[in-house]
Amino acid sequence: MKRWLIENGIFAEPSAERQIFEGWLSVVDGYIAASGEGAAPPEVRDGAEEIVNGKGLLFMPGLINTHGHAAMSLLRGLADDLVLQDWLENHMWPMEAKFTGDDVYWGTSLAAAEMILSGTTTFVDMYDHMDKVAEVAVQAGLRATLTRGVIGLCPPDVQTAKLNDAIQFAKTWQGAADGRIQVMMSPHSPYTCPPDYIERIVAAAHELNLPLHTHMSETAAEVALNVNQYGARPVEHLDKLGLFSRPSLVAHAVHLNDEEIALLAERRVAVSHNPVSNLKLASGVARVPELLRAGVTVSLGTDSAASNNNLDLFEEIRLAALLHKGVSGDPTAVPAGEALRMGTLYGARSIGLGDVTGSLRPGFKADITAVSIDKPHFMPRTDYISHLVYSASGADVAHVWVDGRRIMRDRELLTLDVERIRHEAQRCFERLRG
Amino acid sequence: MKRWLIENGIFAEPSAERQIFEGWLSVVDGYIAASGEGAAPPEVRDGAEEIVNGKGLLFMPGLINTHGHAAMSLLRGLADDLVLQDWLENHMWPMEAKFTGDDVYWGTSLAAAEMILSGTTTFVDMYDHMDKVAEVAVQAGLRATLTRGVIGLCPPDVQTAKLNDAIQFAKTWQGAADGRIQVMMSPHSPYTCPPDYIERIVAAAHELNLPLHTHMSETAAEVALNVNQYGARPVEHLDKLGLFSRPSLVAHAVHLNDEEIALLAERRVAVSHNPVSNLKLASGVARVPELLRAGVTVSLGTDSAASNNNLDLFEEIRLAALLHKGVSGDPTAVPAGEALRMGTLYGARSIGLGDVTGSLRPGFKADITAVSIDKPHFMPRTDYISHLVYSASGADVAHVWVDGRRIMRDRELLTLDVERIRHEAQRCFERLRG
Repeated sequence: MKRWLIENGIFAEPSAERQIFEGWLSVVDGYIAASGEGAAPPEVRDGAEEIVNGKGLLFMPGLINTHGHAAMSLLRGLADDLVLQDWLENHMWPMEAKFTGDDVYWGTSLAAAEMILSGTTTFVDMYDHMDKVAEVAVQAGLRATLTRGVIGLCPPDVQTAKLNDAIQFAKTWQGAADGRIQVMMSPHSPYTCPPDYIERIVAAAHELNLPLHTHMSETAAEVALNVNQYGARPVEHLDKLGLFSRPSLVAHAVHLNDEEIALLAERRVAVSHNPVSNLKLASGVARVPELLRAGVTVSLGTDSAASNNNLDLFEEIRLAALLHKGVSGDPTAVPAGEALRMGTLYGARSIGLGDVTGSLRPGFKADITAVSIDKPHFMPRTDYISHLVYSASGADVAHVWVDGRRIMRDRELLTLDVERIRHEAQRCFERLRG
Repeated sequence: MKRWLIENGIFAEPSAERQIFEGWLSVVDGYIAASGEGAAPPEVRDGAEEIVNGKGLLFMPGLINTHGHAAMSLLRGLADDLVLQDWLENHMWPMEAKFTGDDVYWGTSLAAAEMILSGTTTFVDMYDHMDKVAEVAVQAGLRATLTRGVIGLCPPDVQTAKLNDAIQFAKTWQGAADGRIQVMMSPHSPYTCPPDYIERIVAAAHELNLPLHTHMSETAAEVALNVNQYGARPVEHLDKLGLFSRPSLVAHAVHLNDEEIALLAERRVAVSHNPVSNLKLASGVARVPELLRAGVTVSLGTDSAASNNNLDLFEEIRLAALLHKGVSGDPTAVPAGEALRMGTLYGARSIGLGDVTGSLRPGFKADITAVSIDKPHFMPRTDYISHLVYSASGADVAHVWVDGRRIMRDRELLTLDVERIRHEAQRCFERLRG
């Protein structure tokens, strides 16, 4: 039984009841065991194998990035300032067609390094060569919910092979690394998967008892295409295909009408809001205040570094708090505390881990991010939630734990070799471009 | 004659011609003397008192923050998620009424520390107790364009006293510290200054040969009030009062119609775009693409840390590039290179320093920011301008020079005592709140 303790710390708990306390927090066998204000009780202190001095640190639940394509970090900065379809079809897809397992391994390693350095402890990833992604997640010590995203614009035998690949991946990895690895099933999107193929993927998800993840209603053009092709907007279309009969997470959901928001709420579909990517690709501004008001669980994703171009979830949290105020004209649209929950608690809920991560309460896994607060941009000490949301960046993160295990200490990565990753990522990129 | 040299560096020059080169740059007596690709010529190398090894660094012009109220850093996080008038009248102004020179000194010192740490070399500041702000700017080694902002909602004798204070400040400080300190005249805004008072301030600016700075058209309510009170929208109103007869910089300019954009272009009025503050206070989204198309010089400001809540100009650069794409639906709306110019070259032009700072070309002052690029979020090395705009944050800045003098080395501030500033800022805040 491994017991350790943080003392002299400030703790930010995003659930509404009890946002900030100064004191201690103990961890037993990877779970948060207890916490309290002031000094730790002698019996807690005596049993601890390690005592972390929390002075000058603000501890928060590790951040949860609910949509991304980690390996695409290899394409960061390759093609900016383009419309989504041009960017995707003429720049991303031709490069991605050349991706080998080696590229996915190193691209994902680059992303994992960046995510840990900016305080993320759990990430959702939809890509190909997913065994490589899972290997990186295990090695990095991150929590990950992974899914082989399948594009169905191909002959039936290729469709079947892709689906079998996704099923095999699920059977191999679901629950691996003491449950740190979870799996979802993913039709890439309604515009890249024919209806019958989506139905087959949904059937597989039922059989495997897995949640579903897809891109949905990212652009107005995509919605119009769906109406044109299938006579229905994407929400109704996916609902008819049974996608929402499983726990589901849809990424983007920028272009929704009121009926669609109501249906998403009714079906308990979670939304991954990706504000930076949506702005950069000129997709638009998601109706986040309306989704939250309707009771939809809205979390945050970076999307890939190719459309962002970083994986700093603090930036998504801040932009979620800022953007909807400015666009709606309502400065209370997404308050600071709600934005923080979107990056933590709601992220966990959106992938079925609402009792596992995203909170510092006892019984949760010790997925913890420690922020250095002795910096000018955190002064004066007025409101720590405000400082985390409106002032912080990923570079303020000092230490990261996942499952109670420290994976970053004083910004040094303990599980990954950053020098090697930088070198290999550059090598992969040059081969792909060449 | 002090000569020094950077070699083995990568240099990002924001003017369109020649954006990136790998090589060397020499500085003589505070001015950029020469630069070139590859190795520095022996005669340049031999004459150098200091040689900076630029390996792993990307050098760019120091950032220029064209609108702020530095001392308000003392109020960071005090009141968030409120509408502008409530925030200003019920939270900011009551606290600010208690500000002494000591508070302004330490609040500005806090802001100066944060600005240097995030790569800003020139800042515009509009506040009260401006002698203190100037003292801090001189001590910090920053370049600053300073202005005593006057609110005219007071009896005539108080108005006169404030104007005399502004005039006295200008006479004392214009051109101080080898020209690093420049002065402007500032009616706070059309809604806080009666027309005749604005005319007196404009007359003083003519007499002193100084530019003018004001808040303008930040909220829709303010525009409606102006129409109601004076029968004209703010641009026409200020034009009639002669404000634009001097070189002028207006902050915010969120709510403009086409005629106003055309008039601002015709009068060569510069606009300080403050995207984070405008979103946070739910003021709206400025029409930046239209302003740029009309030929208006648009630069970037953080506004104060009370409505932001940090002074990281990289965040404003990124948001300027992202926001207008998402809101307009045009992914080419503000390309990366243009956003970088808004934070450098255009910032310099907007305060009459277009031949002085904001560029790395020979003849410009050596105001230089060096960014550490050996980090995962800058890999692979595809496009440095893209990386600076879409991936960087102020925390990536390693070194800062102003006027050829190094004021930060490896993130250590060489002109300011950060420990003391943090302590004093907290003390000031507690007194103000108490």
